[in-house]
Amino acid sequence: MDGTWLDADALTRIETPTIVVDLDRVDANIARMATVMREREVALRPHAKTHKSLEFGRRQLGAGAVGLTVATVGEAEVFAEGGVDDLFIAYPLVPIGRKAERLRDVAERCTLSVGVDSRTGAEAIAAAVRGAAARPTALVEIDCGGRRSGVLPEAAGSLARLCQDLGLEVAGVFTHAGHGYAGTEARAAAADDEVAGLTLAADSLRAEGIEPAVVSAGSTPTAMLSARGAVTEERPGTYLFSDRLQAAVAGESLDGVALVVAATVVSHGTRGGFIVDSGAKILGKDVAPFLDGHGWVLGWDAAIDRVSDHHGVVELADGAARPAIGEVVFVVPNHVCPVVNLVDDYLVARRGRLVDRWPVDARGRNS
Amino acid sequence: MDGTWLDADALTRIETPTIVVDLDRVDANIARMATVMREREVALRPHAKTHKSLEFGRRQLGAGAVGLTVATVGEAEVFAEGGVDDLFIAYPLVPIGRKAERLRDVAERCTLSVGVDSRTGAEAIAAAVRGAAARPTALVEIDCGGRRSGVLPEAAGSLARLCQDLGLEVAGVFTHAGHGYAGTEARAAAADDEVAGLTLAADSLRAEGIEPAVVSAGSTPTAMLSARGAVTEERPGTYLFSDRLQAAVAGESLDGVALVVAATVVSHGTRGGFIVDSGAKILGKDVAPFLDGHGWVLGWDAAIDRVSDHHGVVELADGAARPAIGEVVFVVPNHVCPVVNLVDDYLVARRGRLVDRWPVDARGRNS
Repeated sequence: MDGTWLDADALTRIETPTIVVDLDRVDANIARMATVMREREVALRPHAKTHKSLEFGRRQLGAGAVGLTVATVGEAEVFAEGGVDDLFIAYPLVPIGRKAERLRDVAERCTLSVGVDSRTGAEAIAAAVRGAAARPTALVEIDCGGRRSGVLPEAAGSLARLCQDLGLEVAGVFTHAGHGYAGTEARAAAADDEVAGLTLAADSLRAEGIEPAVVSAGSTPTAMLSARGAVTEERPGTYLFSDRLQAAVAGESLDGVALVVAATVVSHGTRGGFIVDSGAKILGKDVAPFLDGHGWVLGWDAAIDRVSDHHGVVELADGAARPAIGEVVFVVPNHVCPVVNLVDDYLVARRGRLVDRWPVDARGRNS
Repeated sequence: MDGTWLDADALTRIETPTIVVDLDRVDANIARMATVMREREVALRPHAKTHKSLEFGRRQLGAGAVGLTVATVGEAEVFAEGGVDDLFIAYPLVPIGRKAERLRDVAERCTLSVGVDSRTGAEAIAAAVRGAAARPTALVEIDCGGRRSGVLPEAAGSLARLCQDLGLEVAGVFTHAGHGYAGTEARAAAADDEVAGLTLAADSLRAEGIEPAVVSAGSTPTAMLSARGAVTEERPGTYLFSDRLQAAVAGESLDGVALVVAATVVSHGTRGGFIVDSGAKILGKDVAPFLDGHGWVLGWDAAIDRVSDHHGVVELADGAARPAIGEVVFVVPNHVCPVVNLVDDYLVARRGRLVDRWPVDARGRNS
């Protein structure tokens, strides 16, 4: 334990399991992405579903982000209440009932845009905001190969036309290349897919006489690769903290990781290895074919091989060195977004000292 | 949609994604387990980490449970504050610093027992409660084959002796057969392992002159199979709601499942199938080799093939019937425990009508 994450004094003050953020590393990650996007003259609209935090959102905005991206009306409510004045709900909303009322309220509190990928969605949004003092603009979602939501790029224009006919101003098009998480090669191909799909979609809008002001791509693996050509905006989220998956896909070390789970060794079990108090209820259960296990224990060159709700099991050869029971270790999670959503607050550290505790303001805002 | 879960009126009042509990089914699950344990003359101490809820805990106690099991000091605090007077923290605690103070406080508020599987843990617990007005009893954890925490059965006696020497009264021994989740055959074998391991461990205590009052096994797959012989107590948790995994391991239909995720169809994507607003941030990411996908969509005979944070993707053949965009569907999760921990409250229904909303009182109490 070299004290990089928490010094001896801080270690006596924490209760594990908990997440610890290194503020210097976060600031470096924010600056790196902001600098690249500034150089490319591409707008940066970070996805706030990674951090769900006003403090971190403000830091991103302070570094030049044009606004924030969110996934749900509930997240938009939290950030609008917190004073963020430009939000994009990058999701094919179909707001009905109480959720329609909430969408209308948020639209009246900030500059808002929302995703659309169907006639039903467009109609529901239009109905929700009819007669409102301020209305959201629509961005048509396209599927560039991730096989999730979104229409085909060449169908973007007709859906945009429909939105306009329903009284929704269309700001542009967006996509998410989820297939870019599949590995280093997939990442580069997915970035090409984003640029190609968005170019087609933008042209499809122009064919309907609609000039897309926003042509938006979004994912941390592809952000720095697709910020070119027709693309005017990037929406990476995970870059803020990074994690094992991002580092692996980018071919980088774990040195850029800014968030770890602090865990106490609670058992040596009956074989080699050890067991920590961080299981699936803080590490989540994200896995990837190119990663072993459920997290990486820093300083012990070992993955967490198995997790149950409150146990993380590290299997080592019989007799191999292991931490003492009661010792605190730091675990890099596979995927950081679900980890943040499983806790109520961040322990914020700088050079090993605890400097603050920030709430996960939008934790659990699924709807 | 046959209205089994929510009737037309209730459907207009919910905001998806959300979890819905059918109270009749819950009551049936509670009664079934309580009846079996009563017939076997085995104490039932349900694991509350499944529901994290005072309301559900009280129902279990009302049906004859001797107390509740929890996994963390934080969960114990919630249930002790809520008036539950007999709790077992079935975890190898190593309480240090503030957590030691919290353990001491809980021990003074209710009848408490705690897990021990190491000298360090025993020493930390003994130190935490030294001089307290009321002290917890210790249960020695054994590994009966799950390869998680716990000592070898034959080593239980010497650890129990050590606990006594440190001033901790030993109530008995406990185990968790995590390997019983691996399938129907594994389930039966794991139940045998529980009985065999606990029998050995109890004898090991007796050889040290310590009569184990509690010989406790615990998991839903094995509970009804290992409630025999030396076993005096069972600690199943998931049986309360059941889920896809439990039904599969028990070889049962989904008719006993009492909790579903209500999801809205938000997109038809660009191929066959559909996309719902319930992804990993409500369904979790538990998978099993003998289950396809990440949840089962009732009424559509389809699994959720892929999840990202807020999308659940159901792939169907091109042209196959699918629900309309905007329609609400009900999804049986693979593993219910993480689902409950991802939401703030339960929508409680009976015969399709919404009757209440209960908080997930101990959500996120990881430490």
